[in-house]
Amino acid sequence: MASSEVTQVSTNKMFGGYQKVYSHESKETKCTMKFGIYLPPQVEEGKKLPVLYWLSGLTCTEQNFITKAGAQKAAAEHGIIIVAPDTSPRGCNIEGETDSYDFGAGAGFYVDATEEKWKTNYRMYSYVTKELPEVISRNFPALPDKQSIFGHSMGGHGALICALKNPGQYKSVSAFAPISNPVSCPWGLKAFTGYLGDNKENWEEYDACCLVKKYNGPPLSLLVDQGKADNFYTDGQLLPENLVKACAESKMPIISRLQEGYDHSYYFIATFIEDHIKHHANALNA
Amino acid sequence: MASSEVTQVSTNKMFGGYQKVYSHESKETKCTMKFGIYLPPQVEEGKKLPVLYWLSGLTCTEQNFITKAGAQKAAAEHGIIIVAPDTSPRGCNIEGETDSYDFGAGAGFYVDATEEKWKTNYRMYSYVTKELPEVISRNFPALPDKQSIFGHSMGGHGALICALKNPGQYKSVSAFAPISNPVSCPWGLKAFTGYLGDNKENWEEYDACCLVKKYNGPPLSLLVDQGKADNFYTDGQLLPENLVKACAESKMPIISRLQEGYDHSYYFIATFIEDHIKHHANALNA
Repeated sequence: MASSEVTQVSTNKMFGGYQKVYSHESKETKCTMKFGIYLPPQVEEGKKLPVLYWLSGLTCTEQNFITKAGAQKAAAEHGIIIVAPDTSPRGCNIEGETDSYDFGAGAGFYVDATEEKWKTNYRMYSYVTKELPEVISRNFPALPDKQSIFGHSMGGHGALICALKNPGQYKSVSAFAPISNPVSCPWGLKAFTGYLGDNKENWEEYDACCLVKKYNGPPLSLLVDQGKADNFYTDGQLLPENLVKACAESKMPIISRLQEGYDHSYYFIATFIEDHIKHHANALNA
Repeated sequence: MASSEVTQVSTNKMFGGYQKVYSHESKETKCTMKFGIYLPPQVEEGKKLPVLYWLSGLTCTEQNFITKAGAQKAAAEHGIIIVAPDTSPRGCNIEGETDSYDFGAGAGFYVDATEEKWKTNYRMYSYVTKELPEVISRNFPALPDKQSIFGHSMGGHGALICALKNPGQYKSVSAFAPISNPVSCPWGLKAFTGYLGDNKENWEEYDACCLVKKYNGPPLSLLVDQGKADNFYTDGQLLPENLVKACAESKMPIISRLQEGYDHSYYFIATFIEDHIKHHANALNA
């Protein structure tokens, strides 16, 4: 079904459908990008299906989610395509690109960089919200008006801002341990300074807590799960309480759950992934 | 609950229980061994629980199964502990130990080696069937008379021979794409020559097809899943048809399923893992 615009890297049958990985030349990031796509068995009936985007966290590629989250079973049951892109451009030969785990390669933070050094390639916001959905629509049996988005940690931040900045584009949004208020945590300070420069007003365009207050679109029901034993939570990198407060002030519905004993890992994600996919299926199949 | 005999390497809450990794000093392999253990939520009720052993395939450590198979959900539902050991001794400084992916480190083949160079450390058969169950019983709330075993590829071979050589020790056995007749395939020829020497009579002690014919114990219901798109199947490394034939000749019940389109990967395992855990739960909770 896919055109020459995308190149199949791998294909594995799973739960009656296929977990595939493709690469393509991105106009936004000006490099080769990979994404995982799970095509559930309903694809073989010739149906067009809803698409759920997954955004991964720091250090991840497209592989982490597709091998560890256990999402495919519920996707097959609900007839949903799941697309999981890489977390940054790769191999752009920008000096310092691979020096740290929390900036540069593997750490695109889902922003469009404005700083000179990064602005040519590090355009993950436009890649995820515009280019990738177009690539998916052109090459796979996707319903372009039935999209939702979720993610983990840096990717939870990404999912929240993509949904909040594009009212109506996503039918639902959810996140596992999202970086909820990046303008106020060390990871966000480092990334936003590096990609966006020193003017903090520009940072607010990519901060879920700031964006919730400005949101003016159709109702978005947010679902957020946070492990209480997550060391990044206790270190103040995630700040889910700030998101709950911002939602309360803005009368934005949010289901925010603190999960006793769970940490930041894919073991936590796998435990609750079925809940999240049901949340999205309710919105996508409505 | 665990004594100083075992050292906790990691612990992650998952599906209400805990996925842990431990290391310990093995008397059989004379080196430090690691194993994964999933303790389902029923452990916290103070119950002793059945134990299901998982044996992994070539190149794997204890990590592959615990991160990729998605077994913990069904283990939690059925109240079963799952123990997943490493696939060989490690770091024994035997010349050539890490030269190939299919012999030496990561490729213990679940035999007790007799060749001089390997016989001191490469005793995975005794490790899996004797030492490890004793370590588990001493350190975790395990029911010592409620054990079952399953595995993948080299580990499917391991599961079959452990059950067939020890009538009554395991309540049930199953395998994904097992090396069913190692005396007749290239992987088996290489491994058995290396570990056991040139006398092929000794090899038959570790070959499921040969052992089925000699089995004289309580009924064992075998469950085997094999992907039809598995390149190792089409290359003649797995030979499930020989196992089906040996079972038929010996009137050993076997459910042998050829799964259209599935390959040798953990995507295949994850698809059918729930079926296998139900198979074992039926035997263990009987």
